[in-house]
Amino acid sequence: MSEPSLLQQLIEAFRCLPGVGPKSATRMAFHILERDREGGRRLASVLEQAVEQVGHCARCRTLTEHETCRLCASPQRDASKLCVVENPTDVMALEQATPYSGLYFVLGGRLSPLDGIGPAELGMTSLRERLEQGEVKELILATTTTVEGEATAHYISELAGRYDVQVTRIAHGVPLGGELEYVDSGTLAHAFAGRQQV
Amino acid sequence: MSEPSLLQQLIEAFRCLPGVGPKSATRMAFHILERDREGGRRLASVLEQAVEQVGHCARCRTLTEHETCRLCASPQRDASKLCVVENPTDVMALEQATPYSGLYFVLGGRLSPLDGIGPAELGMTSLRERLEQGEVKELILATTTTVEGEATAHYISELAGRYDVQVTRIAHGVPLGGELEYVDSGTLAHAFAGRQQV
Repeated sequence: MSEPSLLQQLIEAFRCLPGVGPKSATRMAFHILERDREGGRRLASVLEQAVEQVGHCARCRTLTEHETCRLCASPQRDASKLCVVENPTDVMALEQATPYSGLYFVLGGRLSPLDGIGPAELGMTSLRERLEQGEVKELILATTTTVEGEATAHYISELAGRYDVQVTRIAHGVPLGGELEYVDSGTLAHAFAGRQQV
Repeated sequence: MSEPSLLQQLIEAFRCLPGVGPKSATRMAFHILERDREGGRRLASVLEQAVEQVGHCARCRTLTEHETCRLCASPQRDASKLCVVENPTDVMALEQATPYSGLYFVLGGRLSPLDGIGPAELGMTSLRERLEQGEVKELILATTTTVEGEATAHYISELAGRYDVQVTRIAHGVPLGGELEYVDSGTLAHAFAGRQQV
């Protein structure tokens, strides 16, 4: 056979999306081509821009296309509170569920020496510098309750112990092993409000 | 708030896909940006090309980026058989399931006067010209069994009656392996009335 048609290439390309198998990919391709070319054009353009331009915030390491993200750049946010999370999705989940007005620090994972993820990979140097500056008064740990998440939380609370910082942790209303992005917002808000001193 | 971030725009753009709500769109955006930028880049490029270049085959009206589609252009296909379907997806389904080696004609819908879809919109002029040329000996109807699908099939068989063409229709009945008790009564009545001698 000759080279696959654009339609076949498009079906194949959709399969890079999570949860999309051959049937869904076929449905997506036909939907775009037969009913929503405008949406497809827009998706192609935004996707290309996002893949090229979105990087990490220089202060909190979340995803952003700017030097610093919207939250870090905002003078309205309370810089005395710093919430440590594992992923950029967690920032979004907390922002939607809680009235928290402080800042975030995104680790980008959890300590996992076997996978080669140590303190350096999680930006601990940057976090230490942040604490050294003395602006942060409360450090809120919102890592997951997996073994690696617990180890990460432990490491950070040890680190923070060297500075004049109160360390708190979101309450264990969050189901054990649950990823923040999948927890319903009521539980998440409750857990966030019920944070306790370590 | 200022203009939405590229990440938010990307999440919004993914929602043009069928079956994708806010949660799936968020998951897709983060997956692409954190784990598969290469896949995202490829999807953006193929999607843009497909939306701009894929049109309809001049002979059978299916989706293709060429003047005529791969099937119509192939000398291996039997031009004496023409199968009439409603959508390009039907062509793909039949190609995958059957050893059919004839050609197709894609209506792009069904007769529905209230929605402004008449014979002209379904390419009946083009179908009549095709029949006039005399190459087609068997016209296979594979439209759906909805009221509009039936009306469309009826219209086409009337049209074909003016030419020396045998008109057939794919069998409708109980699906293979289907338990009678779970088959809807319309299908069952149809299958019973259409029983054939063994």
